Amino acid sequence: MATQGQFITCKAAVAWEANKPLVIEDVQVAPPQAGEVRVKILFTALCHTDAYTWSGKDPEGLFPCILGHEAAGIVESVGEGVTEVQPGDHVIPCYQAECRECKSCKSGKTNLCGKVRAATGVGIMMNDRKTRFSIKGKPIYHFMGTSTFSQYTVVHDVSVAKIDPTAPLEKVCLLGCGVPTGLGAVWNTAKVEAGSIVAIFGLGTIGLAVAEGAKAAGASRIIGIDIDRKKFDRAKDFGVTEFVNPKEHDKPIQQLLMDLTDGGVDYSFECIGNVSVMRAALECCHKGWGTSVIVGVAASGQEISTRPFQLVTGRVWKGTAFGGFKSRSQVPLLVDKYLKEEIKIDEYITHRRTLAEMNEAFDLLHEGSCLRCVLDMHVQG
Amino acid sequence: MATQGQFITCKAAVAWEANKPLVIEDVQVAPPQAGEVRVKILFTALCHTDAYTWSGKDPEGLFPCILGHEAAGIVESVGEGVTEVQPGDHVIPCYQAECRECKSCKSGKTNLCGKVRAATGVGIMMNDRKTRFSIKGKPIYHFMGTSTFSQYTVVHDVSVAKIDPTAPLEKVCLLGCGVPTGLGAVWNTAKVEAGSIVAIFGLGTIGLAVAEGAKAAGASRIIGIDIDRKKFDRAKDFGVTEFVNPKEHDKPIQQLLMDLTDGGVDYSFECIGNVSVMRAALECCHKGWGTSVIVGVAASGQEISTRPFQLVTGRVWKGTAFGGFKSRSQVPLLVDKYLKEEIKIDEYITHRRTLAEMNEAFDLLHEGSCLRCVLDMHVQG
Repeated sequence: MATQGQFITCKAAVAWEANKPLVIEDVQVAPPQAGEVRVKILFTALCHTDAYTWSGKDPEGLFPCILGHEAAGIVESVGEGVTEVQPGDHVIPCYQAECRECKSCKSGKTNLCGKVRAATGVGIMMNDRKTRFSIKGKPIYHFMGTSTFSQYTVVHDVSVAKIDPTAPLEKVCLLGCGVPTGLGAVWNTAKVEAGSIVAIFGLGTIGLAVAEGAKAAGASRIIGIDIDRKKFDRAKDFGVTEFVNPKEHDKPIQQLLMDLTDGGVDYSFECIGNVSVMRAALECCHKGWGTSVIVGVAASGQEISTRPFQLVTGRVWKGTAFGGFKSRSQVPLLVDKYLKEEIKIDEYITHRRTLAEMNEAFDLLHEGSCLRCVLDMHVQG
Repeated sequence: MATQGQFITCKAAVAWEANKPLVIEDVQVAPPQAGEVRVKILFTALCHTDAYTWSGKDPEGLFPCILGHEAAGIVESVGEGVTEVQPGDHVIPCYQAECRECKSCKSGKTNLCGKVRAATGVGIMMNDRKTRFSIKGKPIYHFMGTSTFSQYTVVHDVSVAKIDPTAPLEKVCLLGCGVPTGLGAVWNTAKVEAGSIVAIFGLGTIGLAVAEGAKAAGASRIIGIDIDRKKFDRAKDFGVTEFVNPKEHDKPIQQLLMDLTDGGVDYSFECIGNVSVMRAALECCHKGWGTSVIVGVAASGQEISTRPFQLVTGRVWKGTAFGGFKSRSQVPLLVDKYLKEEIKIDEYITHRRTLAEMNEAFDLLHEGSCLRCVLDMHVQG
């Protein structure tokens, strides 16, 4: 491509400071260095983790930065030594890398590759420990190793999944975060069996993906818990069979669920990020085998607690990140599942906007009616 | 037997009040009712759970009662409908019942049978919700459904394991609690694989049984953590390969262990009952897969806590009760393993006393040199 080896100037939504509206800026994107890939981002969705860092509550948040981590695009150029993707490949950037070489990747027990974490955790690239984004010479930090709120971004080659080029990018961008997180929490982390009773705390995108995963796994009852009763109608379409609003009951929710299920649920999933709810999710599990999976991300510094008796009597407390999926290996398989209509995506997309409407999209995220808002990055808004 | 259907008057150590020396009394033991078994206890050991309830810190503790739950004996008589044991059978009373009929037993996922819990939890027998012990007409409560600090006791038929009559009862009495708890925490709950790195917090009987279990499972490193360096010499014989005394280091123990093990251990076991240590045991686990098992029993009301990030990044928090062994089915198999010299028992027995020396035995329990003190229940002390 004509742009190969050159700086690209493009539009990006820049977070200059915490909690201040993002600004659409002309950003200079440097060419990819060794082991890096420059991607033209076509579509990006917004996720609550973007909002969390933007809010300033994330102590690891660095500003100015370019947020965004749930997207799809096309490889523009690659740096030295990059062999697994080439210009023109359709890709999904992966905030969770997969190098296939580190202790974690080789363990076969986890998807939490640590290869580039030391760089992505501080908003830079491994090769020279600098950023590839700048505005008039001033460096702009990367975010989660993806920074998809830019028309072009640079990612490590271990952080990009090559997908079927026939897949609609305006849809499969959702496979960069929320949907796999929910499905994988059920399939990889909890390993829900047919006939199980499942409780899901929080019926946002993640919670609905958990419901979808649980339904696919053959769960016999899928109990959705949310303080917004309106969410139940939509949740039914994703597999939720019963609805409980804790605000409509005097009993603690864990007791209520134990009463409803002859002693507790087989699996519970916390999809909110609230440490009190995490406790309830554990304690509503059945003695002897109930397993609770933390999917939501709690605010920094907050702690979970319970009586150890809860665990000694057989409950298991786990968590999941990106649903336990190995990103480069398994995101392409999820794309294939979507193409075969084995998993939903369209149903999670409630809103569409353009890059220019980024701030409006952030506002939407806090409305109960919004699941995912997908931004078209190259259409004039 | 001549005593069948009759009250038996025998010696027992009675806890009249919390934290007061036990008193050797003449106790009347009623005949077994339907579904009950009267057992002549030949040998009993002391365990920290006895001491905990005796101390008055257990809010469920009831007085006066007869403590004791780690013992072996011979069936004296059986009540109506009891078919699986008969007078003369050698047995180990099991504080964790196994009815093979309840939801928990049938689940195949847990050993936590709930059949008689509603009675044993409040010191009585199911059939008439009364005690079988009395002194001059005054009822004396049962404890854990076993009450082995009596020369004769009455237990539910679902709470007694029939064992090989050639096994030495003065040894295999230990298979009533501590040794199976440690072995099973490794084999059933954690499922430690060959090559694993294991950390054990607390090198008492349970911790040493964990070490023995980990060694048998092929663990590559077994790190013992204790504040008493003297315990390490003995621990080596049970499989501990390295020793860490947290008091000899400034770093938090979880950080120290992570440094010693390139990122953390594969499995950790808390064998003390200290909620701060439970946290350290979780946090010293390797990101992505490290599993921590709570084996120790914390004091009532205490809580464990950690940052949810610890679980979201792949650590698993579990607990175990009686090592996950199904008592009636598996205790006999452990006896067989002992007879085939596949597991240790003798090495845990550091002291022997008689029933008359019960209070001295309790004092011994708090000495670092004592693992298990076995009482001969029928020899004049």
